[in-house]
Amino acid sequence: MTKETAQVREVGLRDGLQMVRTILSTEQKLEWCARMVDAGCTQIEVTSFVPPKIVPQFADAVEVATGALKIDGLHAAALVPNLKGAQRAFDVGLRKIHYVLSASNEHNLKNVRRTTVESAEDFARIVAARDESGDAGVRSTVLGAGVATAFGCTIQGRVDERFVLGLVETLLKAGADEITIADTVGYANPGQVRALMRRVLALTGDVPVACHFHDTRGLGLANVIAALDAGVRSFDASLGGLGGCPFAPNATGNINTEDTVFLLESEGLDTGIDIGALLAIRETIAGWLPGEPFTGAIARAGLPKTFARAETEALA
Amino acid sequence: MTKETAQVREVGLRDGLQMVRTILSTEQKLEWCARMVDAGCTQIEVTSFVPPKIVPQFADAVEVATGALKIDGLHAAALVPNLKGAQRAFDVGLRKIHYVLSASNEHNLKNVRRTTVESAEDFARIVAARDESGDAGVRSTVLGAGVATAFGCTIQGRVDERFVLGLVETLLKAGADEITIADTVGYANPGQVRALMRRVLALTGDVPVACHFHDTRGLGLANVIAALDAGVRSFDASLGGLGGCPFAPNATGNINTEDTVFLLESEGLDTGIDIGALLAIRETIAGWLPGEPFTGAIARAGLPKTFARAETEALA
Repeated sequence: MTKETAQVREVGLRDGLQMVRTILSTEQKLEWCARMVDAGCTQIEVTSFVPPKIVPQFADAVEVATGALKIDGLHAAALVPNLKGAQRAFDVGLRKIHYVLSASNEHNLKNVRRTTVESAEDFARIVAARDESGDAGVRSTVLGAGVATAFGCTIQGRVDERFVLGLVETLLKAGADEITIADTVGYANPGQVRALMRRVLALTGDVPVACHFHDTRGLGLANVIAALDAGVRSFDASLGGLGGCPFAPNATGNINTEDTVFLLESEGLDTGIDIGALLAIRETIAGWLPGEPFTGAIARAGLPKTFARAETEALA
Repeated sequence: MTKETAQVREVGLRDGLQMVRTILSTEQKLEWCARMVDAGCTQIEVTSFVPPKIVPQFADAVEVATGALKIDGLHAAALVPNLKGAQRAFDVGLRKIHYVLSASNEHNLKNVRRTTVESAEDFARIVAARDESGDAGVRSTVLGAGVATAFGCTIQGRVDERFVLGLVETLLKAGADEITIADTVGYANPGQVRALMRRVLALTGDVPVACHFHDTRGLGLANVIAALDAGVRSFDASLGGLGGCPFAPNATGNINTEDTVFLLESEGLDTGIDIGALLAIRETIAGWLPGEPFTGAIARAGLPKTFARAETEALA
């Protein structure tokens, strides 16, 4: 019997690394990528095309992207904050780009010094740049659009669900090939996730939808359950929960990749990812990043004796 | 508009304290109880009537129970492992008793040196002792029965759902006034919780049902969501996540009271509990228990700016 699948996209190399004090070498980043692919995690946000002055960790974005494109089986994506970043990603040959804007106008202004509406217009320009490119490879690039602070914002407070849905419609109209709904500051709760994601999925039709949750207030995996209920099957996560949140000292950041895979597999979904292999990669990366907080229940407590991966069960 | 309510039962004084190295004074335990009641948490498992030789922390069980009975508004309960413990609880005047047996026979043997079937027979004897008491107060005692390791066991591994359901039927027939289903070792996953709890609730009719989850593998609050889906509205939790698990070093134990209340209130359920007051009590207790691990996302990250307690919203 073939099990239903779910997808976990690794964002530790981007959302995780932008928070840490140690700058990893390009080689280390590429080893991380290659070993994730070996572990069965093939969707990776490998870097971010933000200005290196703002985040020195990503000064090697071109080198990381170039190296990642040579790793067999890896579907490498990069985050881009604007048209200029997208242009750099096109040039290096990346075929998957994640653009992000904030549903909170205040957050958007602080993050990229533009209003949310201006950021949406910029996304339309990125789509146009792709579609009008003379390079067939560039024209085949998948453009994902993410809505950050979709469940609330540490600066603005409440974010109106109707505004989020309006933004999703705008991004779809502009040509988004994929939509990600993000709880950037860890404000979401399961009821809110279930309600919003049902409405988002009603708008998106065949366009894939992912959720990006932070575990800042302990509800990360509960929110995954709510999103699964709503029909979402793709989730961003960070190995070892690497990341944290700049607005909440000692708070955890992205949901943890190992724990998310454990949850999804426990729910009978096949992620194709080997948790044991993830734990080994985590060990290596923890060695590279002394003093950084690594979170995760499976790393602490181990898998239950009763755990069987979806794949293993399918064989039985 | 009156919101639907949910109940959080504090078990930190029992499940939490049995794991810590420092023995709290009777006065400290009673201060903890009294402040929990002030915070709106009135259902507390105040102690355990196990032999003091086994758990020295509970050598003052009689004194704690006696003191707890004097605290206005407190619904004090105690855990009892056998008829002898129940007799001590009856004698001191407690009107709520929690009896626990394990669905895993191996765990039951290790815990109380009897088979699960023998423990079920012992529960019937406790019911008889209550019903045949000459004391009308004793006859009014509420006898709750808990099924431990209901979702799997670190010793035995898998626990058959049919066996758990059979035990619930046995306990109901024996006269249980309340059923608690416990994931003693943190093996439960949301799919399993939803499935089992639906079946348990189909058996229990008007008898109240609670869930007791551990967060050992990070799924504690996700399991609460699944249990809510199934219809459960009562949950055990431990302030500051105090407890840990004897079989998993560094692993977290009971789900955290503050975070559980936050989750339930976020879901629009009224717990009647003030999270700010819980955080203040947590501070005090952390001072009494140096070196013990306290967990909890709300204590780390604070409440979201957008958070409104069910009560507050109901007023609006």
